[in-house]
Amino acid sequence: MASAKGYAAQNETSGLAPISFDRRTPRPDDVSIEIDYCGVCHTDIHFVQNDWGVTEYPVVPGHEIIGRVTAVGSDVKNFKEGDVVGVGCMVDSCRSCKACEAGLEQYCIEGMTATYNGEDRHDGTITFGGYSDKVVVSERFVVKVPEKLDPAAAAPILCAGITTYSPLRHYGVKAGDKVGVIGMGGLGHMGVKFAKALGAEVTIFTRSESKVGEAKKQGADHVVISTDESQMEAAAESFDFMLDTVPVQHDLNPYLNCLKVDGTHVIVGLLEPVDPALEAGNLVFKRRVLAGSLIGGMPETQEVLDFCAEHDISCDIEMLDMKNINTAYERMKKGDVKYRFVIDMKTLKDD
Amino acid sequence: MASAKGYAAQNETSGLAPISFDRRTPRPDDVSIEIDYCGVCHTDIHFVQNDWGVTEYPVVPGHEIIGRVTAVGSDVKNFKEGDVVGVGCMVDSCRSCKACEAGLEQYCIEGMTATYNGEDRHDGTITFGGYSDKVVVSERFVVKVPEKLDPAAAAPILCAGITTYSPLRHYGVKAGDKVGVIGMGGLGHMGVKFAKALGAEVTIFTRSESKVGEAKKQGADHVVISTDESQMEAAAESFDFMLDTVPVQHDLNPYLNCLKVDGTHVIVGLLEPVDPALEAGNLVFKRRVLAGSLIGGMPETQEVLDFCAEHDISCDIEMLDMKNINTAYERMKKGDVKYRFVIDMKTLKDD
Repeated sequence: MASAKGYAAQNETSGLAPISFDRRTPRPDDVSIEIDYCGVCHTDIHFVQNDWGVTEYPVVPGHEIIGRVTAVGSDVKNFKEGDVVGVGCMVDSCRSCKACEAGLEQYCIEGMTATYNGEDRHDGTITFGGYSDKVVVSERFVVKVPEKLDPAAAAPILCAGITTYSPLRHYGVKAGDKVGVIGMGGLGHMGVKFAKALGAEVTIFTRSESKVGEAKKQGADHVVISTDESQMEAAAESFDFMLDTVPVQHDLNPYLNCLKVDGTHVIVGLLEPVDPALEAGNLVFKRRVLAGSLIGGMPETQEVLDFCAEHDISCDIEMLDMKNINTAYERMKKGDVKYRFVIDMKTLKDD
Repeated sequence: MASAKGYAAQNETSGLAPISFDRRTPRPDDVSIEIDYCGVCHTDIHFVQNDWGVTEYPVVPGHEIIGRVTAVGSDVKNFKEGDVVGVGCMVDSCRSCKACEAGLEQYCIEGMTATYNGEDRHDGTITFGGYSDKVVVSERFVVKVPEKLDPAAAAPILCAGITTYSPLRHYGVKAGDKVGVIGMGGLGHMGVKFAKALGAEVTIFTRSESKVGEAKKQGADHVVISTDESQMEAAAESFDFMLDTVPVQHDLNPYLNCLKVDGTHVIVGLLEPVDPALEAGNLVFKRRVLAGSLIGGMPETQEVLDFCAEHDISCDIEMLDMKNINTAYERMKKGDVKYRFVIDMKTLKDD
């Protein structure tokens, strides 16, 4: 065991505050990491507030972790002290089911072990995340950060990035495809960058006229105001692929109507019942596809980092001092961030 | 114009009764057909009753038509007098959009012209279907019936058959795949035959214990009683593909839960809002696909007839005298038919 510092919530209403806790004693396949940066994902807020009723307190959030290797176990082959590395949303899985064998550990039949609020598969303890000075993670769930990437701006690639990259790749989005990106937050703005890098013609769907300028700045070729029925009607049957990053309930039907025959709408943010109801006819009459996608597997998480280095893609971030995390949460709830807060972990050490 | 005999409903409550009406004067690309058999589809009942609020009376239903060519227009290349032919759910489309060019006329951007209750693209008249002694149809929308097939039992292939065959092929169902077929009516029993012919391991999902014997007789390898929670739980995450033929609202979530990672659930019967609500998490957490499919295009409609001939597949039918059509509808509403009524059109001539 090694003592670690971090920020944790102790209950639904406490907010995040400094904590000291134990990191596990490294196992032979473990990489010990000193954390430099940690992105702040909306999921963190859900866990801190226990919105999904599954939070185990104290919870140390954070699953967009960038740091440097300080030590490696005897079985570790691919990392050495000093490497700049990343840890995303998961830190373990069964490693032997079909999904794991295919490098799709996020779909592990036994369930992936989440980076925080997960149950360690060996000792049953609850995992703690990246709002901390250090973390110990099995080699398989650690990725290399290419030198070319700014490490702070790379942090959100480990969740917001891979979550949008994976479905674009899985469904083979390619040059010339017409892609719609619904929502322009941390996920949406990454989706635009990836779709553009893949050669697609990209339209951002946003509810607000005020975001048009920003959408264009992000690289969108077109913007559709989704609250404007005439604009939505004009967009009917014209898209090959829709990347839906909206994390709250919304009407899918007007977006499905924007898809061509055989078009695909992928949900990456919505985890609740679909309301208003999905109209089955919107799928049947044009052979459309509605699908879901969850982050990405470890090989693809490495791939997206390499893709970002190759295509000079990074997340737009606002640096955050650890002690301001609760204020940041309040701003995020109002959508007041472009587009991701990243905690500078030096500010934890200074606490 | 040529006078035709048939059975039509005159309003929502009249039931079907004999009618004389005009068939169009054949155009150069038209095939004139004397009808021998016409399958009775549940859609016919919806139109007769105006369940969807779009019926134009009088309506002559019927879109599973088998007959013999009596004459061909000067531009007709592929048919000659005496050929045994079929006409399915559509008789025209724009023929120039991407879907039409791909042989997916059912997804025509201007909308396909339905075999009955459709609007003729040339003269604006309302189309009349196959409960009749003759029909005149453009060559492109006529298919050849292989000699090996029993013409009466082939009729339902033109709707119930192609509707289930098309998604199985589109999603590449193959030997060894685990396929679930939900519902065991006209569509479901054809789906089982096709999936078996493609080499899949087939499970029928039915609500009733009483159908187990019949399901096995149809060739199903396994039967799951969908109302039995323990059976549904045992089936979790084990299917590659689900063919959902249920034409009324039902809970999709327990079936989605039966799909493996990357599994696909295709709706072919449900055209209404999905209720109870679709749980988005059921798609996201396993990268599952929910899709729709509508009949099949003309090349594939020919393909399914040839496939049936090759694999010795036909629909299980009960022959029907034209005058008993209203009684047949009542029996269909109670699910009392194995599995498709087919009208022997000689009995119309005898009327």
